[in-house]
Amino acid sequence: MTLTDLPPMEATTMTSPRTARLHAHQYGKAETRVVRVQRDTDRHEIRDLNVTTALRGDFDDAYLTGDQSSVLPTDTQKNMSFVYAKQHGVASPEAFATLLARHFVDDVAPVTGARVDVEEFAWVRVLVDGSEHDHTWVRSGQEVRTASVTADESGTTVIAGLKDLTLLKSTGSEFHGFLTDEFTTLGETDDRVLATSLAAQWRYDGAVDFDATYAVVRQAMLEQFATLHSLALQQTLWHMGRAVLEAVPEVVEIRFAAPNKHHFLADLTPFGLENPGEVFFAADRPYGLIEAVIVREGAASADAAWTRSLGNP
Amino acid sequence: MTLTDLPPMEATTMTSPRTARLHAHQYGKAETRVVRVQRDTDRHEIRDLNVTTALRGDFDDAYLTGDQSSVLPTDTQKNMSFVYAKQHGVASPEAFATLLARHFVDDVAPVTGARVDVEEFAWVRVLVDGSEHDHTWVRSGQEVRTASVTADESGTTVIAGLKDLTLLKSTGSEFHGFLTDEFTTLGETDDRVLATSLAAQWRYDGAVDFDATYAVVRQAMLEQFATLHSLALQQTLWHMGRAVLEAVPEVVEIRFAAPNKHHFLADLTPFGLENPGEVFFAADRPYGLIEAVIVREGAASADAAWTRSLGNP
Amino acid sequence: MTLTDLPPMEATTMTSPRTARLHAHQYGKAETRVVRVQRDTDRHEIRDLNVTTALRGDFDDAYLTGDQSSVLPTDTQKNMSFVYAKQHGVASPEAFATLLARHFVDDVAPVTGARVDVEEFAWVRVLVDGSEHDHTWVRSGQEVRTASVTADESGTTVIAGLKDLTLLKSTGSEFHGFLTDEFTTLGETDDRVLATSLAAQWRYDGAVDFDATYAVVRQAMLEQFATLHSLALQQTLWHMGRAVLEAVPEVVEIRFAAPNKHHFLADLTPFGLENPGEVFFAADRPYGLIEAVIVREGAASADAAWTRSLGNP
Amino acid sequence: MTLTDLPPMEATTMTSPRTARLHAHQYGKAETRVVRVQRDTDRHEIRDLNVTTALRGDFDDAYLTGDQSSVLPTDTQKNMSFVYAKQHGVASPEAFATLLARHFVDDVAPVTGARVDVEEFAWVRVLVDGSEHDHTWVRSGQEVRTASVTADESGTTVIAGLKDLTLLKSTGSEFHGFLTDEFTTLGETDDRVLATSLAAQWRYDGAVDFDATYAVVRQAMLEQFATLHSLALQQTLWHMGRAVLEAVPEVVEIRFAAPNKHHFLADLTPFGLENPGEVFFAADRPYGLIEAVIVREGAASADAAWTRSLGNP
Repeated sequence: MTLTDLPPMEATTMTSPRTARLHAHQYGKAETRVVRVQRDTDRHEIRDLNVTTALRGDFDDAYLTGDQSSVLPTDTQKNMSFVYAKQHGVASPEAFATLLARHFVDDVAPVTGARVDVEEFAWVRVLVDGSEHDHTWVRSGQEVRTASVTADESGTTVIAGLKDLTLLKSTGSEFHGFLTDEFTTLGETDDRVLATSLAAQWRYDGAVDFDATYAVVRQAMLEQFATLHSLALQQTLWHMGRAVLEAVPEVVEIRFAAPNKHHFLADLTPFGLENPGEVFFAADRPYGLIEAVIVREGAASADAAWTRSLGNP
Repeated sequence: MTLTDLPPMEATTMTSPRTARLHAHQYGKAETRVVRVQRDTDRHEIRDLNVTTALRGDFDDAYLTGDQSSVLPTDTQKNMSFVYAKQHGVASPEAFATLLARHFVDDVAPVTGARVDVEEFAWVRVLVDGSEHDHTWVRSGQEVRTASVTADESGTTVIAGLKDLTLLKSTGSEFHGFLTDEFTTLGETDDRVLATSLAAQWRYDGAVDFDATYAVVRQAMLEQFATLHSLALQQTLWHMGRAVLEAVPEVVEIRFAAPNKHHFLADLTPFGLENPGEVFFAADRPYGLIEAVIVREGAASADAAWTRSLGNP
Repeated sequence: MTLTDLPPMEATTMTSPRTARLHAHQYGKAETRVVRVQRDTDRHEIRDLNVTTALRGDFDDAYLTGDQSSVLPTDTQKNMSFVYAKQHGVASPEAFATLLARHFVDDVAPVTGARVDVEEFAWVRVLVDGSEHDHTWVRSGQEVRTASVTADESGTTVIAGLKDLTLLKSTGSEFHGFLTDEFTTLGETDDRVLATSLAAQWRYDGAVDFDATYAVVRQAMLEQFATLHSLALQQTLWHMGRAVLEAVPEVVEIRFAAPNKHHFLADLTPFGLENPGEVFFAADRPYGLIEAVIVREGAASADAAWTRSLGNP
Repeated sequence: MTLTDLPPMEATTMTSPRTARLHAHQYGKAETRVVRVQRDTDRHEIRDLNVTTALRGDFDDAYLTGDQSSVLPTDTQKNMSFVYAKQHGVASPEAFATLLARHFVDDVAPVTGARVDVEEFAWVRVLVDGSEHDHTWVRSGQEVRTASVTADESGTTVIAGLKDLTLLKSTGSEFHGFLTDEFTTLGETDDRVLATSLAAQWRYDGAVDFDATYAVVRQAMLEQFATLHSLALQQTLWHMGRAVLEAVPEVVEIRFAAPNKHHFLADLTPFGLENPGEVFFAADRPYGLIEAVIVREGAASADAAWTRSLGNP
């Protein structure tokens, strides 16, 4: 008897230890690329989004029996991104994600929870004769801005963020005094390149101007990265997080994942050359990976809002 | 006063609502590419790994004050991958990850928890005159095998898995009877291409032969994908998970993230041609994304073992 | 006066040294993803292509004045991929590319030359109970097969190929006796890992069974890579090319681009461990890059057929 | 008899039509990641390069017999990037590539030709309190600047360039009046989004300030893209090239490869909504690909300088 000859397990009625049970699920449409142009005047505005929606609710039958009668197609979810971009515009990625998430929970009966993740790609105006052009842009190419909104019947949680913000400082960073064991070969240094490609997400509790606050948070992180004399990337992350919580009262939690993008001093001694922090080899892999979660004392936690994917740890 | 002029917040002593608190952290070395050749006989064996280690423990001072005295450098973590590959070989990605994770927890004092993620790239022997060559391979290029092992003082949790297993069936898949609203434009179909690039992870409770069991799990999933007449990708995932739990008693949980890689029928009517399921446009984005968590009834949960990254939701 | 205030240069009539002249051009549709299912019987067949077309001809006015009256839209070129997939099927990537290229040259008046590049992704049947399934596949994931066909009024040139064929041998490779200068630090070795991700293209002169010949060429290359005791990747490429020309009389030229994917011996001496070719670090960048062009003595050259892109050196 | 049983072909002595001949070759080190920090004062400067070198010369024996005595290892080529970064600094990618290329031809006996390709990643200073920080940067993320220098005994050719410059204009672009055939379904439009990810390379004849000239060329292209009312991407490219030749007398040739990154109007009619150029779906594949070569009338050609890879058409 092969696997395919097995009688189907009855998910809801069997009670033996061999019983499989559908424990959790979500489904949605990933990476809908929506570009919204605001052209009410000759000076156009643009917002360029990558929208991912995921719905949670009473969809067991879709899995267990293939009955789709409660399942709003992912194609319809995609349609909503375009419809809402037209009807409401894109005030900010956070606002747009909130509109979509609330729509699914409030207007589609079987949906009890929705998560909407938005990436935004920034554009900057081309300069012509030193003046910003009305309808021509070059893609910024710096960080990708992110928004992750979770909605259910009890409320809405907004997490803003960014990723791929690549930072480097050529001095003002040390690394020494670390724990050693018999497998440690790393030397100490009191002057190194510190570089990272930052991912940060921060959770709001309270209303903010999303665009303006994004700029404040980003600037607070940049300034700390630049000005803190760093004893480790860990310390830099803590101070970046602390500064964000200082700067924006509505931020109650911030999470970082920061690769330590190693820049190794080129060994020029075989050629009779010194290399006092001037020539580096930028390595790809492996890299350090430093993570931190910093919260505002006393704030309520919202762990469920941080779970993007059920299936991919 | 600018952000950088602020006096540092005292993380441990302040109690005002504005206080920042370091809530959680981990750090490690990501993507160490270790290739182990076993050459005890003329017939060599190869295991090709990408190893990521992350340590949790009493590292607050590294963040708060920059004191590294409890921090084992990520460079040392990298060294361990090579040392253990030499000393113990690579019996399987799960076994190798377990050795590393237990080493960090058991042998490095400040470490209270470790997570080791391993990707394995499979190689198949080149055939010469119809016979397998002793020491030459071509990279398989099918799925990437994964292992994620979490260790702490209370024990070790092993999650095996795979990703990028791209599957397609050209018939035996329908999608109809779904929920519609005013924004639904999708048509129903009783014969479509179903394709996905599967990510699956399954958790073991009990000892298994990791390599042999991997093959059994993979085959169980493939057979279900092939033989189930599918009413939705959701249903296919459920049956794949159910079959895995049937086939391997030691699997107590399985999680899926499956993109619905849309293959749209090319519209040939403008050219007077019919297209009864013969010519498709394979789209990149957007794509459906279906997730499911299936557990064995009565098994203890182990949610912490599923958290890879603290910072990146 | 800014750049945009300049009067337009007259491309055809000005003769001063400052005159710009449109020297060459081509345009087309890149990366049309066409999947063709042959379902005449219950045992379906599948061919999965990525098709890029480029047209050359009398299109100066499209550039110089914006007059599109001779320009067949790239959208129409895309349509042709789907139409021909339906009408003619996909006998092979080479045959399909030839059909398309000849159509553009023979049937569209302003077109004097066409280049069609096709990538093919291979699928292998899923096994159920040890038997190949009729309509379910897993993507092979090994090399991408390529075909590049150039057509003009004088004829058609067919170049077959592959890329991303990742090969590794764990012994039977040396590298020593090389030229040294004052900047050389590399040590000699008489036993190393040799690995590459092969790109090879070969030009046919004469009719062949494209699928069968592809298999012969691929196998000839694999066998040489495996069995030649290699003194350098250069030598291996020469013998691979020579063997292909031996095996297939219709191949008159073959070109290789082969990265030397370095596998560095892990230095375990700090830990008191030897490492006789057992544990390696697989590096990403930099990598050696070895190229060779091997031709059949006396064959006519066809350099124009090797030019894919005019604009991107 | 299998392929591997064949007696080796004698490359130099056989004259039968079956003889293989080594026609051309080059070898080198690809993608050496060199970061140069200039720290003569507290205000550091940074140049971040990806360097690829390829040598041509009397290396037949390396291929034919495995004799490496004329082969300067690719590892030594890598060393040179670091040595010259230290000794000479990086005045510009063009100047740095020229130094390297001339060194190989002038100082390494068997080398008769060298090609050096450099990518440069730009960094912009972090602002702190509105002032540029001395030693902290964020990676710009806009275009990658490129330099391709070819040197041989007769001289040196410098090609500058950029790639991945993503541009978009939300109006001022039409496409109509094109050629139609029975396979054409595209509609005409007099107002569309025009977007591309530009690759451009231009060849210098004569000395220039490479950094300053790069800025002039880039700005000339941006201004044309913005201000030309476009009847097709072809026309836009012509005017961009023409403007560059106008602006910089030392540029004698420019080549473009420009994907037409399609932004399709979302069809909102099923929902009773109009969409006058406001909401777009940004598609990935397929895409138009428009290429052009524009030369200065009377300039000598330098086709060999445009050939990067022998093996990969």
